[in-house]
Amino acid sequence: MHWVKILGVGVGAAALLGLGIILGHFAIPKATDPPAPSASDSQGLDLAILDSIMKQLDASRIRENLRELSKEPHVASSPRDEALVQLVLERWKDTVTGLDAAKTYEYEVLLSFPSAEQPNIVEVVGPSGTVLHSFKPFEKNLTGEQAGPSVLQPYAAYAPPGTPKGLLVYANRGSEEDFKELEARGINLSGTIALTRYGGVGRGAKTINAAKHGVVGLLVYTDPADINDGKSLPSETFPNSWCLPPSGVERGSYYEYFGDPLTPYLPAHPSSFRLDRHNISGFPPIPAQPIGFEDAKDLLCNLNGTSAPASWQGALGCDYKLGPGFKQNGNFSTGSEVKVSVHNKLELRTSSNVLGIIQGAVEPDRYVIYGNHRDSWVHGAVDPSSGTAVLLEISRVLGTLLKKGTWRPRRTIIFASWGAEEFGLIGSTEFTEEFLSKLQERAVTYINVDISVFANATLRAQGTPPVQSLIFSATKEISAPGPSGLSIYDNWIRYTNRSSPVYGLVPSMGTLGAGSDYASFVHFLGISSMDLAYTYDRSKTSARIYPTYHTAFDTFDYVEKFLDPGFSSHQAVARTAGSVLLRLSDSLFLPLNVSDYSETLHSFLQAAQKNLGSLLQQQNISLGPLETAVQRFEAAAAALHQRILTLQKSSPDPLQVRMVNDQLMLLERAFLNPRAFPEERYYSHVLWAPNTGSTATFPGLANAYARAQDINSSRSEAWAEVQRQLSIVVTALEGAAATLEPVADL
Amino acid sequence: MHWVKILGVGVGAAALLGLGIILGHFAIPKATDPPAPSASDSQGLDLAILDSIMKQLDASRIRENLRELSKEPHVASSPRDEALVQLVLERWKDTVTGLDAAKTYEYEVLLSFPSAEQPNIVEVVGPSGTVLHSFKPFEKNLTGEQAGPSVLQPYAAYAPPGTPKGLLVYANRGSEEDFKELEARGINLSGTIALTRYGGVGRGAKTINAAKHGVVGLLVYTDPADINDGKSLPSETFPNSWCLPPSGVERGSYYEYFGDPLTPYLPAHPSSFRLDRHNISGFPPIPAQPIGFEDAKDLLCNLNGTSAPASWQGALGCDYKLGPGFKQNGNFSTGSEVKVSVHNKLELRTSSNVLGIIQGAVEPDRYVIYGNHRDSWVHGAVDPSSGTAVLLEISRVLGTLLKKGTWRPRRTIIFASWGAEEFGLIGSTEFTEEFLSKLQERAVTYINVDISVFANATLRAQGTPPVQSLIFSATKEISAPGPSGLSIYDNWIRYTNRSSPVYGLVPSMGTLGAGSDYASFVHFLGISSMDLAYTYDRSKTSARIYPTYHTAFDTFDYVEKFLDPGFSSHQAVARTAGSVLLRLSDSLFLPLNVSDYSETLHSFLQAAQKNLGSLLQQQNISLGPLETAVQRFEAAAAALHQRILTLQKSSPDPLQVRMVNDQLMLLERAFLNPRAFPEERYYSHVLWAPNTGSTATFPGLANAYARAQDINSSRSEAWAEVQRQLSIVVTALEGAAATLEPVADL
Repeated sequence: MHWVKILGVGVGAAALLGLGIILGHFAIPKATDPPAPSASDSQGLDLAILDSIMKQLDASRIRENLRELSKEPHVASSPRDEALVQLVLERWKDTVTGLDAAKTYEYEVLLSFPSAEQPNIVEVVGPSGTVLHSFKPFEKNLTGEQAGPSVLQPYAAYAPPGTPKGLLVYANRGSEEDFKELEARGINLSGTIALTRYGGVGRGAKTINAAKHGVVGLLVYTDPADINDGKSLPSETFPNSWCLPPSGVERGSYYEYFGDPLTPYLPAHPSSFRLDRHNISGFPPIPAQPIGFEDAKDLLCNLNGTSAPASWQGALGCDYKLGPGFKQNGNFSTGSEVKVSVHNKLELRTSSNVLGIIQGAVEPDRYVIYGNHRDSWVHGAVDPSSGTAVLLEISRVLGTLLKKGTWRPRRTIIFASWGAEEFGLIGSTEFTEEFLSKLQERAVTYINVDISVFANATLRAQGTPPVQSLIFSATKEISAPGPSGLSIYDNWIRYTNRSSPVYGLVPSMGTLGAGSDYASFVHFLGISSMDLAYTYDRSKTSARIYPTYHTAFDTFDYVEKFLDPGFSSHQAVARTAGSVLLRLSDSLFLPLNVSDYSETLHSFLQAAQKNLGSLLQQQNISLGPLETAVQRFEAAAAALHQRILTLQKSSPDPLQVRMVNDQLMLLERAFLNPRAFPEERYYSHVLWAPNTGSTATFPGLANAYARAQDINSSRSEAWAEVQRQLSIVVTALEGAAATLEPVADL
Repeated sequence: MHWVKILGVGVGAAALLGLGIILGHFAIPKATDPPAPSASDSQGLDLAILDSIMKQLDASRIRENLRELSKEPHVASSPRDEALVQLVLERWKDTVTGLDAAKTYEYEVLLSFPSAEQPNIVEVVGPSGTVLHSFKPFEKNLTGEQAGPSVLQPYAAYAPPGTPKGLLVYANRGSEEDFKELEARGINLSGTIALTRYGGVGRGAKTINAAKHGVVGLLVYTDPADINDGKSLPSETFPNSWCLPPSGVERGSYYEYFGDPLTPYLPAHPSSFRLDRHNISGFPPIPAQPIGFEDAKDLLCNLNGTSAPASWQGALGCDYKLGPGFKQNGNFSTGSEVKVSVHNKLELRTSSNVLGIIQGAVEPDRYVIYGNHRDSWVHGAVDPSSGTAVLLEISRVLGTLLKKGTWRPRRTIIFASWGAEEFGLIGSTEFTEEFLSKLQERAVTYINVDISVFANATLRAQGTPPVQSLIFSATKEISAPGPSGLSIYDNWIRYTNRSSPVYGLVPSMGTLGAGSDYASFVHFLGISSMDLAYTYDRSKTSARIYPTYHTAFDTFDYVEKFLDPGFSSHQAVARTAGSVLLRLSDSLFLPLNVSDYSETLHSFLQAAQKNLGSLLQQQNISLGPLETAVQRFEAAAAALHQRILTLQKSSPDPLQVRMVNDQLMLLERAFLNPRAFPEERYYSHVLWAPNTGSTATFPGLANAYARAQDINSSRSEAWAEVQRQLSIVVTALEGAAATLEPVADL
């Protein structure tokens, strides 16, 4: 510290001079773009303010937010969705509790809706053509909230209209293996209707697999074994418990990609180029319809044929047969067929994102983004309003501090309420398409809190490795709800943990797929991202997800009675997300630990060596360069970490801080390669693209390796692609390491 | 300025305190990574140092550099090329005149060479099979420098081996239209050998066009009309003038893409994935061989058939006929065929880049890159050694200041000596592939000086719009060589100028194609780039390029006698490039004027409206969104320019300066879209990709429009692609504008 030398010269005048120097160096606020209550280039995290924010995050206000947000169904682009756009806008423009600015961004996107006039219907039709049974197209109105024009009937969004009819087969989860198994057992699938249960593979994949095997229509239901821990009686289910009632049906998008289907890679502005609507890849190839388990039971327990394998059996109280067709002496005469009438319509609708901003005092050009979607399938109390209720409470607390003039973050904070997530992460994807360059240059991290509370047992966090230590730091300082007295961290580690070679026992953080609005941030733009929620005690339930997911039973009362009475888990998530947000926006050094990528890379490398190594060796493909690249990355990340620790102990120059922060912020970008997987729309991150292989390793390598083993592929071309994918990931890792090494090293 | 208020309090103690504050605020050097003689965050361009550098750049040292660099042939990967690698390394590692560090980077790349044992030969073969004439495979040894094992015979690099034979036709420049014209005149091209002249279309394109029409072998020569202003006699040509002698042959790469052919998008490390060598796109499909005009004359003036069109005629002193075959009573009996024997070999060779670095004192993580290739075809005195001679002189002068401890730039300077440029910009492309992320994050500008002196009349500058004002500023301060007393700028504007709607009359700056090592920087990485040289008085010569280009006559004596006696033009280029380099590395605010893009965008827009508008309207494709995007860009760029002017008048905070500098630096990146033209390897810049249409407008739009007008294309799909390209460019412009707008605006 240079001023020490100057102070050392001695006399009073010199001391005054020295004091002036200190003041000049440290105390004079520098001019910045937005109004800055206390901006200086060395402004960092203020623990007193963090603490005060933690205390102000209020469970009862979250509860009130949720009640308001979920009081009516608000599917994307509906009048109530638009009303909630206004609600969010008003909150963020409030002069006492609002942000610096807020604005809506509209996109014209292709959505899919059931017909109000002609509901989708599933019927059993006798051999003579008479309708033997017609299933009710709606869920039962158990609490008075399951009826009315704004309650969309259950449907498979983007499934094409059509009225296929055929003998019924049971196809377990509708995976490729499931259909192969049926064929192996001599069942001719051509022209059949397949009944499948949710889980295992994605919605859209079920239709694609089915169609490939000649199936002409698909039914999908939720088995009580998968969601209710086996319970299926009305007395055991909602409104008597958190379980899915017999008429409950999971809605959902059956589109295989994400983003507006008509405008891939382009923002869906009215004037934007649109694909020909009849020529879109990724839509279900055959009509499909989800049904409740009471209806599935009628069908499944009357099937003919041999028994399904043990792993295909469920909890409907009968032996599941495979079909085809119905058994003798059952409810339906043999030879009866199932007819699926789907009348879904594609519609170009306007969907809005709402963005709110708090301008950073020192680095306004660095964005910490926090978002959740706003649209639901029905009331969506859990999905997504539990997240939005938390979002609005965090923005209220920060907005209040801001408007009082007592705080302004170092970096810019952007809050987002995304539209049309349920149809395929559309609002967030269009946003990333529109602001691609700005976000790639400036976004520090994306924080997603979609469903904030699945259950009230423990935190669940997913993210890219650099955010792990940040989430750990934040949760160690926050009390878990309930009487345990533990921190969120200490509670979390009891539920889900792993042995880290670096840290020992730590909570397990999950990875990010494409389950919510973080997808385009991490996969398309390479922005470090996370998703936070409170979730289950897995010793108490094996439910796939909370039981009323995407049904008309996902209501405020459901949350209050069964998920989080007292809203303490909501509050815990608000504190966690709020603390993470503040640490990212206010810390002098970004709290992103890029060294934590080394552990991931090592585990990917080891998995490749162990599971792929010998066959690669036979093909003369060496993993040596990959090993070298991983080692270089590890060394560079560790050295950067050390440089930061050293800098933190000095009084670093603002540009030195910025320099290392840029290295931290931009690391994730270095893993992007838009040419690596051109067939995987939006997936450019060479570490987190979908891995269809069976080894948890670098996805491009894993996928190419799996294809090369496929007996049908051209062997030499397929192994060449393995080598190419290996070079792609080696180049990305070497390039990423180069960004972490000292910036002026050759 | 905040300290004024504090000074205002009065008494002596306060004044001392105030002085201290001033010192503390402005004078104490902040700690930075590399050793910094006088680093402070506000360190800017020092005009005295700039002036001193201008004076130290020494013509006689450039001359000595050139003599050493060009004394032996140094084709890529040859022993002499490797010796020059060591020469450059030694210069940059010199303890008195060198840089902070220097290093070589090796790549294993696929080059193409003629066979030393079996030279390529062109022969005339009589109808009976006897060889009637065999052309000499080498250039004449006119100065003692045109013979010896290191002088590669003239060849078409990457042309496949083969010995095609057929009747000769004359095909002008070998464009698609030229071959169509021949067919329109009833000439069956199938099985013919085509003689073409250089110019008009690229080397590789000539072979592709020829092969498409059934031609089996290609000859290429340089017509004296195109290079010698018609002169062709030995007495009128080198060594008696700067003109190409009759035996002179232009070598060159006939590869259609750039970068190592086996490793597109991957650095060519030994372990990298390589394409199957027999399955590469972009190589010439048929054998090809370049010949001198004395040989071309023998062939051309003996051709049979009708006269070629007037525009196809040249200066060989006879009426050019079209063929096929030779005329009666000429040198060769009718029915004689031409046989082209090509024995080129593909070889995997090691090629090196040399990089040298001066670490920035204040912003070491911002790179100003200055490069040129090192490899030549033969001695390469002009191409590329005239550029390297300048490069080494600039690095010497800066290195000397650095080693003396009197100067260190604000930003990092990287000098580069690229390998294997002549084969297809290979060294620079591999560099950008290897360090893609680091360069995209940190490179401010790439300065290329390949051939520094084509001729000694005037500056020629090519670049992306943001560098225009910088080149103007620099050249206004430097005297042009010669007795005019004019500045380089004032001299330049006399030779080539245009009327700018913004500035009035200014020198014309050219755009960047793929003619030298800037290509991957601008097209692949989106880095603002420029190429600088001294060039012709177009009123005195219409030569396509300096006449001995790529021949064995491009020697030191040629430069000294005919191009730049006294080396004052070399010095002028050194001063221009040196000044530009220093301004970029040392100015507090980056001297990149992004507003100058507005003029380009307006001109592209107007051209689209004028030339494409009516047909687009017929297709219901509106240019309205493009107009809006251009306007938004213009407004954002102008406002940013104003903000910078205002900031410059204040004493801005280092982070504020960095913020606007990042906006300036990264603008070019916002024009990249790696998915816009997937078939155009490396071309991702939506404004500068190749435009094959006839309108100077947005290239994606122009190309799609041209295809839609092609009668053979599917009309609706082709017009959809026009709309898609329009949306791509609108999205890029809107996105770019968003990066220029105030960083914390919604």
